[in-house]
Amino acid sequence: MVSVHHTAGTTPPPSVATVRYELITLGDELLLGLTPNGHLTFIGAQLGRRGALLQRNVTITDEADAIAAQFRESWARAEVIITTGGLGPTCDDRTREVIAGLIGQKLIFDPLIERAIEERFVKFGRKMTANNLKQAYVFDRGEVLPNAHGTAPGLWVEQDGKVLIMLPGPPNELQPMFLDQVVPRLAARGLLQAREAYVQLRTAGIGESALETKLQPIFDRSGGKLSVAFCAHQGAVDCRLSSPTGALSAGELEAVAAECVQLLGDDFVCSGHDSLAHVCAELLRAREKRLSVVETATGGLLAQAFTEVCGACKFFAGGVVCCSNDAKMQLLDVPECLLLQHGAVSEEAAVAMATGASETLGADYAIAVTGFAGAAETGAVTNGNPVGTMFIGLFTPAGVWAKKLSYPGPRSTIKIRAVNAALDWLRRELLRAQRGEATPTRRSGAMQ
Amino acid sequence: MVSVHHTAGTTPPPSVATVRYELITLGDELLLGLTPNGHLTFIGAQLGRRGALLQRNVTITDEADAIAAQFRESWARAEVIITTGGLGPTCDDRTREVIAGLIGQKLIFDPLIERAIEERFVKFGRKMTANNLKQAYVFDRGEVLPNAHGTAPGLWVEQDGKVLIMLPGPPNELQPMFLDQVVPRLAARGLLQAREAYVQLRTAGIGESALETKLQPIFDRSGGKLSVAFCAHQGAVDCRLSSPTGALSAGELEAVAAECVQLLGDDFVCSGHDSLAHVCAELLRAREKRLSVVETATGGLLAQAFTEVCGACKFFAGGVVCCSNDAKMQLLDVPECLLLQHGAVSEEAAVAMATGASETLGADYAIAVTGFAGAAETGAVTNGNPVGTMFIGLFTPAGVWAKKLSYPGPRSTIKIRAVNAALDWLRRELLRAQRGEATPTRRSGAMQ
Repeated sequence: MVSVHHTAGTTPPPSVATVRYELITLGDELLLGLTPNGHLTFIGAQLGRRGALLQRNVTITDEADAIAAQFRESWARAEVIITTGGLGPTCDDRTREVIAGLIGQKLIFDPLIERAIEERFVKFGRKMTANNLKQAYVFDRGEVLPNAHGTAPGLWVEQDGKVLIMLPGPPNELQPMFLDQVVPRLAARGLLQAREAYVQLRTAGIGESALETKLQPIFDRSGGKLSVAFCAHQGAVDCRLSSPTGALSAGELEAVAAECVQLLGDDFVCSGHDSLAHVCAELLRAREKRLSVVETATGGLLAQAFTEVCGACKFFAGGVVCCSNDAKMQLLDVPECLLLQHGAVSEEAAVAMATGASETLGADYAIAVTGFAGAAETGAVTNGNPVGTMFIGLFTPAGVWAKKLSYPGPRSTIKIRAVNAALDWLRRELLRAQRGEATPTRRSGAMQ
Repeated sequence: MVSVHHTAGTTPPPSVATVRYELITLGDELLLGLTPNGHLTFIGAQLGRRGALLQRNVTITDEADAIAAQFRESWARAEVIITTGGLGPTCDDRTREVIAGLIGQKLIFDPLIERAIEERFVKFGRKMTANNLKQAYVFDRGEVLPNAHGTAPGLWVEQDGKVLIMLPGPPNELQPMFLDQVVPRLAARGLLQAREAYVQLRTAGIGESALETKLQPIFDRSGGKLSVAFCAHQGAVDCRLSSPTGALSAGELEAVAAECVQLLGDDFVCSGHDSLAHVCAELLRAREKRLSVVETATGGLLAQAFTEVCGACKFFAGGVVCCSNDAKMQLLDVPECLLLQHGAVSEEAAVAMATGASETLGADYAIAVTGFAGAAETGAVTNGNPVGTMFIGLFTPAGVWAKKLSYPGPRSTIKIRAVNAALDWLRRELLRAQRGEATPTRRSGAMQ
């Protein structure tokens, strides 16, 4: 068992990657499939960003026996154990008591927490019941992690050369507590890196293997000091550059990343974790341009990608979701004869829809997505186009085009890939416009 | 250790609830937070429907040592072990080899699987690489679960009084395999109930404790033979009635459920698992009515709820997603003076938007949602309305109304609750119209 480093390290020790992290997520609602296990996704990603790999996640029931058995096993093999849930006021919430017994801690009443709970109830005009005071009991040899968004505080214990972190279940309470209180404490003890462990370059419109081939000359020159990981997700690939042995300094890593960005050209989306829609939004805002969208098969997903960006009203003129030809004709002035002649799923329709969305909503740019994402009951070929056929139309101040794409896989995948392809096309056109380049003349549908 | 029942039982044995199920989900992408653990959600829910509670889910890395250590521990304590992932063609896919070694199975080459893999590559016009044939190796004393949607078949082993089920990682391959092949086999061995273990009554617009109080007289009469569980999710509560001891027959359980439905009135949404949008869609289709929506703060979620329903074109006339007043005025003919006088987040605006959405899109019914769902950077009070204030407008053939709602919590919760409230209001109006009842006269905003 590697012992836990208690000295505050300034240089991230390479051992961070070898620290054994385990996450115990509690709750019947997870095992019954009522709630997705978002804590695994969140905590796994946050640890990864700071150079640690979560070794194991165990989801168990709320029963005292199950908690005791699992905690005993995990405590014997892990160095940092994080638990989520089971800290609330009801009789189901047994985690605190069970674990206190196992690690020989006494539970003591903390009047400061009592006051914070009472104040929270007063603030929201609710009546506090007596069982809420259960949450004011804390370990006698531990620290309290105050909860800014709820009543149950988190608990932090260092004992037997290990760290135990107990977090409340609601995501809006857990997530800020983890980022603001847990990450800095772990970093100060050398159990997480003090800054992000890797430089992430987001790319789009290029496959994983083509990306690797393109960047290989740069990787080769690093002579084994560089570690590279690729994470592909539905038309976008993230490339993560790191130096786990510390052989490359932060500055050297940034220099390698800059070389990659140079070589990638417009395939490069951004450094870090911003979404494609966010990057498009920045480009639109910088040039004070507005965007509108119209979609059929993606059913609102494209509009949502933009409305999720903070301050969307500044650049998002609006979106139209339609299934029927009526809606296209009424809202967007798409001529009926065009839809009848070419079909609603066609390049011509995509061009007319994008143009209509731009004109009706007074937007400089407009995206249209129309196609067959497939349904549970159909695998049909419609109008010569099999399921997975999508047409994207893009209206810009320089012209309007459409292209045909085709995706395999289930409905949900087809929808996300079409949205990402549409966002990526818009992004490339915005980059071209930003550089003052003329958009290459081409026939509708001739692109990519 | 309870031994596994190999006899095909016709009556569901009460012991199903005591069978120890464990799920091992493999993959660094889960532990790094790149992919949510959807297998837990899906398999947990499916087992729960057939009377079994998944006891534990363990997520581990793809490393051979980690797989071996975890499998050994789980095999010693569980009766049914399900693994997901690690059956693919690459060198990362070690699950088959590692587990074969641990349970003393030989891997043998199956030419039938080879042919199925080859045919699949031909069908999709792709070139097969040699490593794909790794997927044609199966246990010498086990069964193969054919994969209708991919190359890696599932594996089924009964040994040492236990069942081992190994499933491929992609959800669109795993899910049909689990429903079509795994569930019937488990049921035939008495490890799952042959039919749904509970009757689920979906309700909306009534809180969990109010629901319990309302139904308590019926529960009391069952004299302890009935088990009741409530599952609350964002404005909707499911009530699950079961008889784990078998004291109530299926018919008696249905009779209790029918009594509950009677007492619940319009708070009852449906029996089973249909979504609120699906129930609204059925009501609209039955009366050949069409619906349109317009939304600001929910940014496309409401339109998505309807476009996710199969055959949405039959009843969904279209949706508009807007942030700016311009879009409301241009697309929906909402008068500018109204927006200026009352604000875009007001009952008046909600009424005008719903009316505009109905008229412009030629729909019989229309829902409008406008409000402040909050953003990461703001907690501001706008125009006297704090974050969480939502106005819903409902246009029907009988009139148009709006109501004000207020939700606490994070942005994502506020959005889902507003969508559910809007769907529930529409559903109630459709029920009233179906019964030919006059909608009660009331002032805008006076409802609920």
